[in-house]
Amino acid sequence: VTGHRVRVRARYPETDRMGVVHHSHYFVWFEIGRTELLRELGMPYASLEEEHLYMPVIEAGARYRAPVRYDEEVDVETVLQEVTGAQVRFSYRLLRHPGGEPVATGFSLHAAVNEKGRPRRLPQELRERLERLIPPAKERP
Amino acid sequence: VTGHRVRVRARYPETDRMGVVHHSHYFVWFEIGRTELLRELGMPYASLEEEHLYMPVIEAGARYRAPVRYDEEVDVETVLQEVTGAQVRFSYRLLRHPGGEPVATGFSLHAAVNEKGRPRRLPQELRERLERLIPPAKERP
Amino acid sequence: VTGHRVRVRARYPETDRMGVVHHSHYFVWFEIGRTELLRELGMPYASLEEEHLYMPVIEAGARYRAPVRYDEEVDVETVLQEVTGAQVRFSYRLLRHPGGEPVATGFSLHAAVNEKGRPRRLPQELRERLERLIPPAKERP
Amino acid sequence: VTGHRVRVRARYPETDRMGVVHHSHYFVWFEIGRTELLRELGMPYASLEEEHLYMPVIEAGARYRAPVRYDEEVDVETVLQEVTGAQVRFSYRLLRHPGGEPVATGFSLHAAVNEKGRPRRLPQELRERLERLIPPAKERP
Repeated sequence: VTGHRVRVRARYPETDRMGVVHHSHYFVWFEIGRTELLRELGMPYASLEEEHLYMPVIEAGARYRAPVRYDEEVDVETVLQEVTGAQVRFSYRLLRHPGGEPVATGFSLHAAVNEKGRPRRLPQELRERLERLIPPAKERP
Repeated sequence: VTGHRVRVRARYPETDRMGVVHHSHYFVWFEIGRTELLRELGMPYASLEEEHLYMPVIEAGARYRAPVRYDEEVDVETVLQEVTGAQVRFSYRLLRHPGGEPVATGFSLHAAVNEKGRPRRLPQELRERLERLIPPAKERP
Repeated sequence: VTGHRVRVRARYPETDRMGVVHHSHYFVWFEIGRTELLRELGMPYASLEEEHLYMPVIEAGARYRAPVRYDEEVDVETVLQEVTGAQVRFSYRLLRHPGGEPVATGFSLHAAVNEKGRPRRLPQELRERLERLIPPAKERP
Repeated sequence: VTGHRVRVRARYPETDRMGVVHHSHYFVWFEIGRTELLRELGMPYASLEEEHLYMPVIEAGARYRAPVRYDEEVDVETVLQEVTGAQVRFSYRLLRHPGGEPVATGFSLHAAVNEKGRPRRLPQELRERLERLIPPAKERP
């Protein structure tokens, strides 16, 4: 499966004194991955919030395989794993550019809530567009 | 099981425009939890690095139950789950202060490496001190 | 002049690959300084925002004299420099703990605005409490 | 004067609960500006560090004119102001994209040091390349 891809570059303050990007920052890169996926889908996350749809992370995880150093580039590959009436799950792969060496994998699970943090349904149109992105089961990572 | 506790307060830049602490920041709080646990054990992480022992995160995850807002305080409870010759696993609970409402749980798995990133053994003394912290199996979360 | 003091400790992700706390982070420490000054004054910043008083930074600067390394402690000394009907100016000194070596100085200038970002007057009570904190001119740094 | 330009987009965790990018983050954008200027000059900062040339910030400041919100784009315009044997000064303008509205200005002053933090001279070639970038005095902002 090849999901949506966006390239990021490791910034100086994202590194720590071990000389590599801090593990907490990978979750920011994952967020950039799903943000750009939604933008390409024609439904930027900023516009969802304008319609009072928020999608906070309710679970997230990462496995770190290789360090990323200052100024290195990484492709964030985002795959939509599952969408239900009230939840969305993404998975991520970070691949070093150039070369494609896998540097990390991860996932995030999101709830759909309104501006008060109460659960709400995903709009039908968004749900349908997202469902079309889900790879066939046998191809899922 | 009550693990080691340290209190943190949500800083302004740690919040995002949803008005709550960004999910990636919880991993920074987890890190403060294990840092203070090691300090209390008499083996501050900074001193381990001086002896060329680094413990990068190789896996981490979190479940988010309730939002944390600006200026709120949270107790980070850290429990040492497992220590082997080359790996250490911690689990975490974040509890709102006051009140004790659980706001998140999480874990981190660490490898022991040297200054070149090569696997190395944990020093025997550190390993023994850590092992004494592991709660009996039946009490583990 | 000895202003309000609060102690912070350098966290791992606040350092960069030069091994020291990133210069942008000093502005977060300055913010902690003025936050704790306001709290001690009995007017926590969070409560000001509840009354629709926001105080965004409109100008800020820092001079860096000595690096701060991982796990080192620093005292943030905050002095209220000036308060007018619509602006407040703070100055800061960062002093290494222990020892008191100056590691940085800085300032921030804030405008008083409402929830829509429009200029507003500072509440009279806040202004008076702040004015009492201003050191006599001859003692100002 | 039109300096070197690079475009950035406001990320979710860079915003705070006021709904705008936190003021401390502008210094990260300034850093991206000078990083890309050096890259275009054929002397990426990462390669300078490999030759034991570090350029820590010894002074920095910013003026904030208009807020930047989530997902908005900003052009970072970087102008080299001055280069001496041991110091370099950059100035910055942030311009909203599209439209070009000025959202902030700033500067940073850097010392040249070696890997031990001791002052050193800038390599002659770097100094010459940088000097060619300085706009004539009458055009300087």
